[in-house]
Amino acid sequence: MATISSVSPLAPDAFPDLPVIEGVTFSTVAAGVRYQGRTDVMLAKLIPGTALAGVFTTSATRSAPVLDCQDKLGRASEDGAAILVNSGNSNAFTGKGGVSAVEEITAATAAACDVPQSRVFTASTGVIGEPLPFEKITAHLTALASQLDTSGIAAAARAIMTTDTFPKGAGTEVKIAGQTVKIAGIAKGSGMIAPDMATMLVYIFTDAKLPQAELQAMVSGHNAQTFNCITVDSDTSTSDTLIVAATGASGVDVSGDLAFSDALHGVMLDLAHQVVRDGEGATKFVEITVTGAASDRDAKTHAMSIANSPLVKTAIAGEDPNWGRVVMAIGKSGAAADRDRLSIRFGDVVVAENGWVSEGYDEAKAAGHMKGEELFIGVDIGLGEGRSTVWTCDLTHGYIDINADYRS
Amino acid sequence: MATISSVSPLAPDAFPDLPVIEGVTFSTVAAGVRYQGRTDVMLAKLIPGTALAGVFTTSATRSAPVLDCQDKLGRASEDGAAILVNSGNSNAFTGKGGVSAVEEITAATAAACDVPQSRVFTASTGVIGEPLPFEKITAHLTALASQLDTSGIAAAARAIMTTDTFPKGAGTEVKIAGQTVKIAGIAKGSGMIAPDMATMLVYIFTDAKLPQAELQAMVSGHNAQTFNCITVDSDTSTSDTLIVAATGASGVDVSGDLAFSDALHGVMLDLAHQVVRDGEGATKFVEITVTGAASDRDAKTHAMSIANSPLVKTAIAGEDPNWGRVVMAIGKSGAAADRDRLSIRFGDVVVAENGWVSEGYDEAKAAGHMKGEELFIGVDIGLGEGRSTVWTCDLTHGYIDINADYRS
Repeated sequence: MATISSVSPLAPDAFPDLPVIEGVTFSTVAAGVRYQGRTDVMLAKLIPGTALAGVFTTSATRSAPVLDCQDKLGRASEDGAAILVNSGNSNAFTGKGGVSAVEEITAATAAACDVPQSRVFTASTGVIGEPLPFEKITAHLTALASQLDTSGIAAAARAIMTTDTFPKGAGTEVKIAGQTVKIAGIAKGSGMIAPDMATMLVYIFTDAKLPQAELQAMVSGHNAQTFNCITVDSDTSTSDTLIVAATGASGVDVSGDLAFSDALHGVMLDLAHQVVRDGEGATKFVEITVTGAASDRDAKTHAMSIANSPLVKTAIAGEDPNWGRVVMAIGKSGAAADRDRLSIRFGDVVVAENGWVSEGYDEAKAAGHMKGEELFIGVDIGLGEGRSTVWTCDLTHGYIDINADYRS
Repeated sequence: MATISSVSPLAPDAFPDLPVIEGVTFSTVAAGVRYQGRTDVMLAKLIPGTALAGVFTTSATRSAPVLDCQDKLGRASEDGAAILVNSGNSNAFTGKGGVSAVEEITAATAAACDVPQSRVFTASTGVIGEPLPFEKITAHLTALASQLDTSGIAAAARAIMTTDTFPKGAGTEVKIAGQTVKIAGIAKGSGMIAPDMATMLVYIFTDAKLPQAELQAMVSGHNAQTFNCITVDSDTSTSDTLIVAATGASGVDVSGDLAFSDALHGVMLDLAHQVVRDGEGATKFVEITVTGAASDRDAKTHAMSIANSPLVKTAIAGEDPNWGRVVMAIGKSGAAADRDRLSIRFGDVVVAENGWVSEGYDEAKAAGHMKGEELFIGVDIGLGEGRSTVWTCDLTHGYIDINADYRS
């Protein structure tokens, strides 16, 4: 198994100081599922009345834990709920044995936490196609339940890492009618895969109070603008999971409150950006904004075509303001475009206008922008009002090192 | 500009000995469009009555020469035709100046070859967004026309290379009712890059006689199974062009003849495979066959998702029989699949069956297959009768070297 020890150059300076969310407690353990010498299981327990909303991978080969979560999600949690996550083994493509493992783990978690089994949500991330040694996890559940603590979120962020190069957390506080509501979330992902497939897991907690259906609608809407707008290598995990839990413990009803919605959006976007910043081999964080498309959907198609193009991503790695490759990516995307109406910007430098290189284009200035760590590519299609912003990273030798040179 | 001097390890031993096609003559010149010390323009002249069929990039940002060819293609060539190709500059994203350059070149070619301007087909391949110095080409047209020769096809294959590491040719002879019909073709592509976008150009000639509409239908059908089934990096050129010219000089009418159709298919497939074998940084040639899909279209979607997945391609580079990544690529493709019905084969080794690793799976044997230069990945979806075969190469440090480390 690969050991990629150095932290991404795009990592934040430190794990943030997250607010403590009333109504949720955490514990972690080193169960030895696959990794040695580190924690690999996290448990989060949620108080009765917590509303849970989620978004999962759309993969047709999604894992047993994902299918189980999707089945359970919509219901109420009058008797509380729990989240149990292991790293090191994804329990994906493990046949009927995988389903049994989920059953064993959720039953043991329910018993240890005194919550209904129908309210236990699990996720597994790591190597694929190997039976999950669930008994290594269930053996620790009584101890995990006895050590639950309100301040354990940073430790939880570490326990769910596979080969991420840094733990990912984001949080905020928002005033609603003079009262404070807190949000804190953690994520793992896109740091690759020495074991196997990149999986993204995200857990966000708030003490706000709102109905499950409203929370789900808010989370799905924000997800479309945050996690669904990032890409490292165009490959979609079988295990991607996002869960947001609103404990209601603050007593503050945030139904219909835009400030809360904005705050939750901010936490989700922060975590999504951190996933890109830990992209395999990444040395550049790239924001791509497409405007003037025939529709928002067309703008997203163009933006993702640029963000996923190996030729664009290698040009970025080479610090080359290679706008020809951006034109190519727009051309192949399948969305509407007119070569002679395109304009392209790298940072503040207008590179191309009306289908040709801009008059007075300063190649040295554009090349200067490409030397930075935070890049911006702006494209105007010149056809309509559609717009989209997505985020990605560059494609470097580091990506090949992680995925080819090391044997999982 | 990059110089990638070493020949692909997957290259054929030598350029093939192609049959001479009656009715077409070739000449080449070193015009200095961009490259120094090599030929960079080819001219092919076709006799009156030649039927021409073609397939072009579907890019929304296709180049001026492509648009011009598409406009001209369907008509008859009672007065003959000509093909003029330059390398070093793609005349793409060059605005109105690009259209003028095509006009100048086709007018000069028509005059030098004594064919109608409406029957002159041009293509340009190389750097994008720079004005094409068309006068460097038109200055040589009288000389080119005076040197036309039936035996010049190998030199033509060299003149259209950009940074391909070997010239690509394929040909065959087929007996139709006791008479011989010949086919010879050349291609450039997917090696490329030092200048800019990967472009694929293919020209195939035959002395067979058949109506243009029938030739076009045959070429379009074969293209769907050959050139449209290869991928190096999922990026689509703005200049891709395939033209097949049937001079009719053999006098052999091949209308409705399956042997001719099969022979043409074979030449097209051979050239398509050579393009993959010269894929940027390629060290492995990979055939991917998907069977048992709900439809042929679904099978192609799955196969291309596998062939384009960076995680699958880097695993191949690492000689890792990483079937988990194949499962992932099937799951994300969007086409119908059922995790628990999948089976996967690497070479002759059955890796996974019914949604889990195969009983008696021999990892060492699968790893042994991955060490070869010619790999096979077989997937059965287990849902229907749809099938598709596509071809690709691995993703290596060489790809990054060519596209990032060298400045175009």
